[in-house]
Amino acid sequence: MNLYEAHILSEDKLNIDQDRLSFLINKAQKALEVKFNEMPFFDVASDLSDVDDLNKLAQKFKTGLTDIVHIGCGGSSLGAQALVQVAGYGCVGSDAKKPFNIHFLDNLDALSLSNLLDGLPPKTTGVVIISKSGTTLETVALASVYLDWSITHNGADYLSDSAVIITEPHKEKLNPIRQLAEKYDIPILDHHEGIGGRFSVLSNVGLFVAALFEIDLEQIKLGAKSVIDNPKYAAEGAAYSVYFDEKGHCENVLWAYMDQLKLFTAWYVQLWAESLGKDGKGITPISSIGPVDQHSQQQLFLDGPKNKYVTFITKDQSGQGNMLKPDIFMGDQFDYIAGRTIGDIVTAQQRATAATLADKGIPVRFITLKALDAATMGALLMHFMCETIAAADLLEVNAFDQPAVEQSKNLTRQYIAEL
Amino acid sequence: MNLYEAHILSEDKLNIDQDRLSFLINKAQKALEVKFNEMPFFDVASDLSDVDDLNKLAQKFKTGLTDIVHIGCGGSSLGAQALVQVAGYGCVGSDAKKPFNIHFLDNLDALSLSNLLDGLPPKTTGVVIISKSGTTLETVALASVYLDWSITHNGADYLSDSAVIITEPHKEKLNPIRQLAEKYDIPILDHHEGIGGRFSVLSNVGLFVAALFEIDLEQIKLGAKSVIDNPKYAAEGAAYSVYFDEKGHCENVLWAYMDQLKLFTAWYVQLWAESLGKDGKGITPISSIGPVDQHSQQQLFLDGPKNKYVTFITKDQSGQGNMLKPDIFMGDQFDYIAGRTIGDIVTAQQRATAATLADKGIPVRFITLKALDAATMGALLMHFMCETIAAADLLEVNAFDQPAVEQSKNLTRQYIAEL
Repeated sequence: MNLYEAHILSEDKLNIDQDRLSFLINKAQKALEVKFNEMPFFDVASDLSDVDDLNKLAQKFKTGLTDIVHIGCGGSSLGAQALVQVAGYGCVGSDAKKPFNIHFLDNLDALSLSNLLDGLPPKTTGVVIISKSGTTLETVALASVYLDWSITHNGADYLSDSAVIITEPHKEKLNPIRQLAEKYDIPILDHHEGIGGRFSVLSNVGLFVAALFEIDLEQIKLGAKSVIDNPKYAAEGAAYSVYFDEKGHCENVLWAYMDQLKLFTAWYVQLWAESLGKDGKGITPISSIGPVDQHSQQQLFLDGPKNKYVTFITKDQSGQGNMLKPDIFMGDQFDYIAGRTIGDIVTAQQRATAATLADKGIPVRFITLKALDAATMGALLMHFMCETIAAADLLEVNAFDQPAVEQSKNLTRQYIAEL
Repeated sequence: MNLYEAHILSEDKLNIDQDRLSFLINKAQKALEVKFNEMPFFDVASDLSDVDDLNKLAQKFKTGLTDIVHIGCGGSSLGAQALVQVAGYGCVGSDAKKPFNIHFLDNLDALSLSNLLDGLPPKTTGVVIISKSGTTLETVALASVYLDWSITHNGADYLSDSAVIITEPHKEKLNPIRQLAEKYDIPILDHHEGIGGRFSVLSNVGLFVAALFEIDLEQIKLGAKSVIDNPKYAAEGAAYSVYFDEKGHCENVLWAYMDQLKLFTAWYVQLWAESLGKDGKGITPISSIGPVDQHSQQQLFLDGPKNKYVTFITKDQSGQGNMLKPDIFMGDQFDYIAGRTIGDIVTAQQRATAATLADKGIPVRFITLKALDAATMGALLMHFMCETIAAADLLEVNAFDQPAVEQSKNLTRQYIAEL
């Protein structure tokens, strides 16, 4: 299965040290081979045994619901959001087709939460609560307010039919969210113990939400598995990032030319920043959407400091979308788009923007998707997780921890006490 | 009027060259004084004469509409989006209260556009089309498809009541969108000729959309004027950015701790990137939202390369929002939030995150808003436009052009012809 293709544009302009680049590609490839054998993380792609249960639980859970509240922070939310955007979530024009309202509470905001609860119909609202450890402050805070609201309106019995909790099995540590599930008889999906939040999208965490949208879970997994079977592009991608970083390109732009990939780029920023930003190392991820950002960051990328490495994610959209009839405008200056489609213009724009950057000597990788469907989303998600894991190996940092954030957690606790 | 306050945290840890910083602050202050006298741009804040007409046109236009499509690219759209988010647009939980559906078509996407038109009720949908020159490719393409759809369903006569166009007065150059307005008798609001798209938010471009949401336009202008009357914080902000950039802090993070400022940070990224990124200069803008990004980019900011300068936008939210009753959880580990509100936690988090970054020697500016209302939005928008204009002066680049993007426009045209 070959769902996408990737290559560097105008490599001749980049004066690449081929020995160094080859060394990095080989090292990245070997790191991935080791990880594929070592980490339970990768088994989720080839294990199809959970698909039926996830689909059944999703079907049962959503029956009769008009609204679903999704409570989770960081990686526990962004992966699911990225995945369901392939079904239109969060895109202009998707409202008319949506099967239910989904509200991702991934931030703590006093006004948003109270507005949301004020407007929700309690009898037809369900909730999905996700926290690996069961102790994430924001998730606990949001869940406690939500549950209080739901129990006040519906009584506690309603929760067993209208809630799903995803958290780790009990371990030696207390897991308040798991205890809660047991107290109210709420169905639990086990959070894989070997997978951290930001790498969890292809486990229960992302797949249950995808199942709510009736996205084909098997196809997602098959797409993901195709990257494990052939991690060439991911290993190369990690090597390019680190190679160009060594040459002073410390900013890593991911520029997707499809609305449906906007949340994917947000997921990527979180994954890349938190996995690699440690020990004084790290490469700054920047998300961008085309064509709109041609009217925004493009000027900086083209003519600002030469410290960017830009990856385009594109798809041939020629012939797709509405046809243009610019004869509604007087004069002939738009004759060149007459009879063309929206997809024709975007297809030309993505190539033109990438070629212009490459022509200026800026390192550009051009990824072409054959389609944008469940399998491709599985492949893209797995590709960038592999790329991140391999880049961490090359930078010699641990991709799976986030040691620096403890201090502010402790300070938060102190400041709350002082209020 | 003093709507906000700004200062650098833990300045003693930054080993600042006070002579250089003072020089930059003075230069920024003088640059702003010159611009205030020279540029028509700033008059929009003190001229209240357009407020009544804008409100009347907005009221007339939206009467009977269930859906409003907003067609504009880059600065012609983001400013309006930022402004109306203060009324909840784009926030979780705002759906229940919204007076109409608004669809910002700021990107060209084949699927989004056709999905949108398929789902819209033609008889109760209106459109706002914005292009300063009337020749922006994306805007022309979107408008031609929309108008074809509307005329097919409603006939051409319907447009004069259900469309508004914002564009420049006729000049020597052809303006296809203005011609269109005249052909179909569509009301026109003149786009100020002395104001470019990304600086247009406080002109008709942003204010008409704000009027649709019944945001107080006079308050917006009064807030903006308060910054012109006292540009101290803006001049200092420009000087800090350039000073820290000189010291290797080439990334400029804007981290807002309110959902209602998420689109504001997106507007800022466009403004800052396109205004300053030229002649090999420029400082990379990065948007961030709290507390959620504590689970994302915070790790990179704290422990990655020391090349960031971080501005927090905060507000004391203590006592606001729902109260927490964590006794629903067994055990006592969340006793410290019992009886607190969501706003209490966020208030502690914004301080804790900023203090932790500052403690690590990362330059942190802490902006505190007294409230988040129409006047404050006016002040914030004007503040960051002034900061950008002053920073351009310090970097010796022209804030108002975008010379690098022509090449890709020409290539786009060529590639379309080759399809």
